[in-house]
Amino acid sequence: MSHNSFGHLFRVTTWGESHGPAIGCVIDGCPSRIPLTEADIQPWLDQRKPGGSRFVTQRRESDTVRILSGTFDDGDGPVTTGTPISLMIDNEDARSKDYGEIARAYRPGHADYVYQAKYGVRDHRGGGRSSARETALRVAAGAVARLILGSDIAIRAGVVQIGPHRIPDDALDFDAVQDNPLFAASTEVVQPWSDYLDGIRKAGSSIGAVVALEVTGVPVGWGAPLYAKLDAELAAALMSINAAKGVEIGAGFASAELSGEDNADEMRLSPDGLPVFMSNKAGGILGGISTGQPITARVAFKPTSSILTPRRTITRDGTETELRTKGRHDPCVALRAVPVVEAMAACVLADAMMRHRGQMGG
Amino acid sequence: MSHNSFGHLFRVTTWGESHGPAIGCVIDGCPSRIPLTEADIQPWLDQRKPGGSRFVTQRRESDTVRILSGTFDDGDGPVTTGTPISLMIDNEDARSKDYGEIARAYRPGHADYVYQAKYGVRDHRGGGRSSARETALRVAAGAVARLILGSDIAIRAGVVQIGPHRIPDDALDFDAVQDNPLFAASTEVVQPWSDYLDGIRKAGSSIGAVVALEVTGVPVGWGAPLYAKLDAELAAALMSINAAKGVEIGAGFASAELSGEDNADEMRLSPDGLPVFMSNKAGGILGGISTGQPITARVAFKPTSSILTPRRTITRDGTETELRTKGRHDPCVALRAVPVVEAMAACVLADAMMRHRGQMGG
Amino acid sequence: MSHNSFGHLFRVTTWGESHGPAIGCVIDGCPSRIPLTEADIQPWLDQRKPGGSRFVTQRRESDTVRILSGTFDDGDGPVTTGTPISLMIDNEDARSKDYGEIARAYRPGHADYVYQAKYGVRDHRGGGRSSARETALRVAAGAVARLILGSDIAIRAGVVQIGPHRIPDDALDFDAVQDNPLFAASTEVVQPWSDYLDGIRKAGSSIGAVVALEVTGVPVGWGAPLYAKLDAELAAALMSINAAKGVEIGAGFASAELSGEDNADEMRLSPDGLPVFMSNKAGGILGGISTGQPITARVAFKPTSSILTPRRTITRDGTETELRTKGRHDPCVALRAVPVVEAMAACVLADAMMRHRGQMGG
Amino acid sequence: MSHNSFGHLFRVTTWGESHGPAIGCVIDGCPSRIPLTEADIQPWLDQRKPGGSRFVTQRRESDTVRILSGTFDDGDGPVTTGTPISLMIDNEDARSKDYGEIARAYRPGHADYVYQAKYGVRDHRGGGRSSARETALRVAAGAVARLILGSDIAIRAGVVQIGPHRIPDDALDFDAVQDNPLFAASTEVVQPWSDYLDGIRKAGSSIGAVVALEVTGVPVGWGAPLYAKLDAELAAALMSINAAKGVEIGAGFASAELSGEDNADEMRLSPDGLPVFMSNKAGGILGGISTGQPITARVAFKPTSSILTPRRTITRDGTETELRTKGRHDPCVALRAVPVVEAMAACVLADAMMRHRGQMGG
Repeated sequence: MSHNSFGHLFRVTTWGESHGPAIGCVIDGCPSRIPLTEADIQPWLDQRKPGGSRFVTQRRESDTVRILSGTFDDGDGPVTTGTPISLMIDNEDARSKDYGEIARAYRPGHADYVYQAKYGVRDHRGGGRSSARETALRVAAGAVARLILGSDIAIRAGVVQIGPHRIPDDALDFDAVQDNPLFAASTEVVQPWSDYLDGIRKAGSSIGAVVALEVTGVPVGWGAPLYAKLDAELAAALMSINAAKGVEIGAGFASAELSGEDNADEMRLSPDGLPVFMSNKAGGILGGISTGQPITARVAFKPTSSILTPRRTITRDGTETELRTKGRHDPCVALRAVPVVEAMAACVLADAMMRHRGQMGG
Repeated sequence: MSHNSFGHLFRVTTWGESHGPAIGCVIDGCPSRIPLTEADIQPWLDQRKPGGSRFVTQRRESDTVRILSGTFDDGDGPVTTGTPISLMIDNEDARSKDYGEIARAYRPGHADYVYQAKYGVRDHRGGGRSSARETALRVAAGAVARLILGSDIAIRAGVVQIGPHRIPDDALDFDAVQDNPLFAASTEVVQPWSDYLDGIRKAGSSIGAVVALEVTGVPVGWGAPLYAKLDAELAAALMSINAAKGVEIGAGFASAELSGEDNADEMRLSPDGLPVFMSNKAGGILGGISTGQPITARVAFKPTSSILTPRRTITRDGTETELRTKGRHDPCVALRAVPVVEAMAACVLADAMMRHRGQMGG
Repeated sequence: MSHNSFGHLFRVTTWGESHGPAIGCVIDGCPSRIPLTEADIQPWLDQRKPGGSRFVTQRRESDTVRILSGTFDDGDGPVTTGTPISLMIDNEDARSKDYGEIARAYRPGHADYVYQAKYGVRDHRGGGRSSARETALRVAAGAVARLILGSDIAIRAGVVQIGPHRIPDDALDFDAVQDNPLFAASTEVVQPWSDYLDGIRKAGSSIGAVVALEVTGVPVGWGAPLYAKLDAELAAALMSINAAKGVEIGAGFASAELSGEDNADEMRLSPDGLPVFMSNKAGGILGGISTGQPITARVAFKPTSSILTPRRTITRDGTETELRTKGRHDPCVALRAVPVVEAMAACVLADAMMRHRGQMGG
Repeated sequence: MSHNSFGHLFRVTTWGESHGPAIGCVIDGCPSRIPLTEADIQPWLDQRKPGGSRFVTQRRESDTVRILSGTFDDGDGPVTTGTPISLMIDNEDARSKDYGEIARAYRPGHADYVYQAKYGVRDHRGGGRSSARETALRVAAGAVARLILGSDIAIRAGVVQIGPHRIPDDALDFDAVQDNPLFAASTEVVQPWSDYLDGIRKAGSSIGAVVALEVTGVPVGWGAPLYAKLDAELAAALMSINAAKGVEIGAGFASAELSGEDNADEMRLSPDGLPVFMSNKAGGILGGISTGQPITARVAFKPTSSILTPRRTITRDGTETELRTKGRHDPCVALRAVPVVEAMAACVLADAMMRHRGQMGG
């Protein structure tokens, strides 16, 4: 991964700031002849901004994506041509007027200070480049990656923990995710979590969360030792999402408390003679290579630092002050991360598939 | 990170299998005129194999490193020349005779099955390429990276949890690590953990663990948005270590239970007018860029699957069988990961420093 | 260089087809705080389309560049922020109606056949991705690279040969290039070459040419052994320009006829004790590293295959046919390559400077 | 290409200096299950040092290659395992005693001065890293690349010009190359060229040359727009060879004198309905993608600067002096470049094949 690109054969480069004229990305390396129009991408973007929900930022953007290159209609509808796919989303609701104070003071917990220190200048409007707005492009790229992977591979994520409230592992239901505004992986928690988040929201506070990922249908053999391990690339991709602070694969941190007997997934043969595992502590990856089992991961997100309570900070000019984040804010930014987690997984997997095919054929 | 290389300007490529004639690495991009002999690397390798300890594998290797290129003595002792540094370690104690059974059957929890499925062939002797033996090269490369970073940057890791036994966060003492055979970050746990591990060892079992990392002295500004984020690159580097299943930065998964008030690190000015943070939930990284605070991370390691209890598995030829790992084994492989965690952090930081310097000068 | 990106620390990714809605590029890794507006880029683009000249394609494009990201005005005018710079140029004059016949038949000497064979589909309109239109983005990126390099480095190119007509080496005058519509590196050839090209144009034919490059002000030490050699990277960058068929550095192919005595540039000390070379057969590069002398290179361009004479070819459907290129065409496409040659050199050098700084500091 | 690596999916990293203990390379990304022993590589290395010839350096090296990793014998002989292949060649005849004077003074036309200026230190013994000795590793890597490409692809090079003496294009005979000590692509020139080179050698002088390359059997479709063009990657790979000063593809610099009518290769259908070209001015590459025709290229090499005539130069300490290269030297270094040109082509093509397969399948 270089500064603003990720992937190798399937390579995505994103650009744009929260309050510039637009944001966009270039997808390079996509195979040709895949049917692709904006209608294949837009639904994933729409999912990321569940309109009327009171739990997500009130910024109003249609997030309408346009394909500017890389497809051609030769009579049977637009298909990819194998050349770079340029996607663009205009910024419509960029209220720069809100951002007077944070031009001067660093918001604690945000990237304001480090951008200023590193670059000597920063686009403070809405967080500039560090805004979560950029994640729309990851979702768009992920939509293309899904088309490459095909429908046999299902990539699903959902919120499994908000603050102290956690869905038991044996109650996870990814089918529930799209049916509730919390992206929760269980219908049973929707009401209590909504009440809990209402409290957070009314207090002008925020809370962290954990998002779980499950990918089914990945064949054995993707990923490569030793530094292109599938889990290492997933970890980088997921940790690069705004506010992510932790990533675990399979049993993850719980592995620390497991014995060798409990941790190793035993193998048997299926009735038709294929290898099957009797558990999936590995999360579908061994030695950095997919096992054919579902790939499972979890990502921890910190609470947003944009809260109503005044916080102590300093200004660019070197004076101490207090800052209270007015305007829009999310009580739990992790909710919006669910489609982003899925998208990053899709991109990593499409790249791994293509690299495997490059080395090994088939 | 490509298949067997990591880093960009400071780039390390490793090669070799557990039971081949040797293992080695090539370090490309090292600045010139850094004094370097084997004596700068060997101590870090020696640390990785604490001789008499009964808690680590009994394989006997001197792990003597040789520098084959990239240094030159122009009168004042050997210094780096800016050209590739080739390091090699001979394999001495490669008892291939031990490995008859695992040539045929897949060890559960190991990479045997996926290598065979991906490549159609595997070097089964001692795990071949997937053996933890390769981590010696990471430690060697890390020693060079430390020289680039200089003595103002201190990189330290230690075991903070073994099975259910955990050192409280406020009791971490990285100074203790080098003084005990468990690499524990506290002297107080050494005796009880030793007793606990003795039990594990005698039972022919194994247990997971967590290693904590702390890096001090990194200035504000290293790392870069959005896909070369310092935390994303650390996550990949640490997750690429054998048996790693989880990585967290700063408060990590605990962030999920934090409120915005508790999570955001407030800022003040030091008596001499410099920015200071009043806490470090961020683990020294915001927006993917170092804050100048200590960088803190934790890595979860699974228990080794090489245990004495027979486990169900299948053979290459497609029959069901049971496998019991004879010969050497570690009750807790994470102990040996401590210097590897440090080394990977050193490599990531040297690369981040050089890339920052490349873009921004200074 | 990956598919549609080039450079490492200064990295340019381009996208877009000749007749899509727009073309664009993303420049990643640019240092921050460099003053940058469209006015710094537009003049280089304007230079590429010398309005009234009868020697270049009659396609009418304003080629107005827009900066969509990566700059910010913090009070003293827009400066780069260190984040990706997205540039876009709308396609205005895309007469798709012209392209009915070439949708069906492969133009000899063009990339039509290989795109179709490789990808199974191609955007035939105006050459699609393989159109020289893409070079506008190289020129735009080169304008940014020049700002990084600073005014001490002068990058100049000019046409030195058209067909059999060649400017003697000792008569090269790069100052003349901007003053004549042929971009010729000598005022004396303008009239005879114009007459010659008029003949070519009226005959509906075309002719090849050679463009020379000279870069002054590059300090000793940029570039790196062995595969990031400055001449190797220049060769790739220049050979990637449309219609380029040859690249030579310094004495180039003439080196084959030189003796060791004549070829090696002897060294002396200047009056102030600095190393000076007494000739520059090396073209400013030895061992892949800049010597401090002017960097000189030459690029050969083939004639465009878009000519009025019918040529034998085949169709997509596998029938033999003849094709005559109607509509716009250039009698000598190399004329338009002059600013592109300069731009590619600027990008390679900015990247080399930043990589040198990354490894060696300073 | 990064500093000391080239290729993407088929990636080669070389290390070592002329007079260090050894030189070596790591080949990453090789497909698995390719039969490989030293006997597949050694003949290519032997070819590079035609024993008794009086036209090449008298340094005596057995150049015995050892495979240190990446192969495994599972019963049917050693095959590649898909993991890194480490190759090593010991340096045997490293007469450091010869190099006293050049430790102090810069050899004109060599890389001594630029290495010293860039790195502040250099291994002067035998040219250190800039020695042509490194090209043995390119030849070794090329041998592996050939195995990937298979026997349908024939890669052949030969000397076609020495000084003013040139083999006419229509007299090229690559079959002749292995039968004469000059690697000349014609038997008829062997005697006169030998006489000519004897004169050069006796005079203690040297002369440049041109090497031609022809690759047959490459299918249509390898390479990719716009910066991974096959010709751009070939140009970089060939220009990175020691002493290379120019590269041309197909008609190359002669294109500058061609008309569009003469340059564009017309197409017809073969009796069995396949596309055929009626000429090959393009050199087998259009738009950066292979056409299915033979790929042809030519590389110009400068004469070595190691000659007996004293040349003016300066010392590290800043005094003017004269230098006369004693000891071994080649009258025409390009002779030894013939297998290197072939090897670099093989590596570029193997990488292009794998990348094409990664993106497009098949």
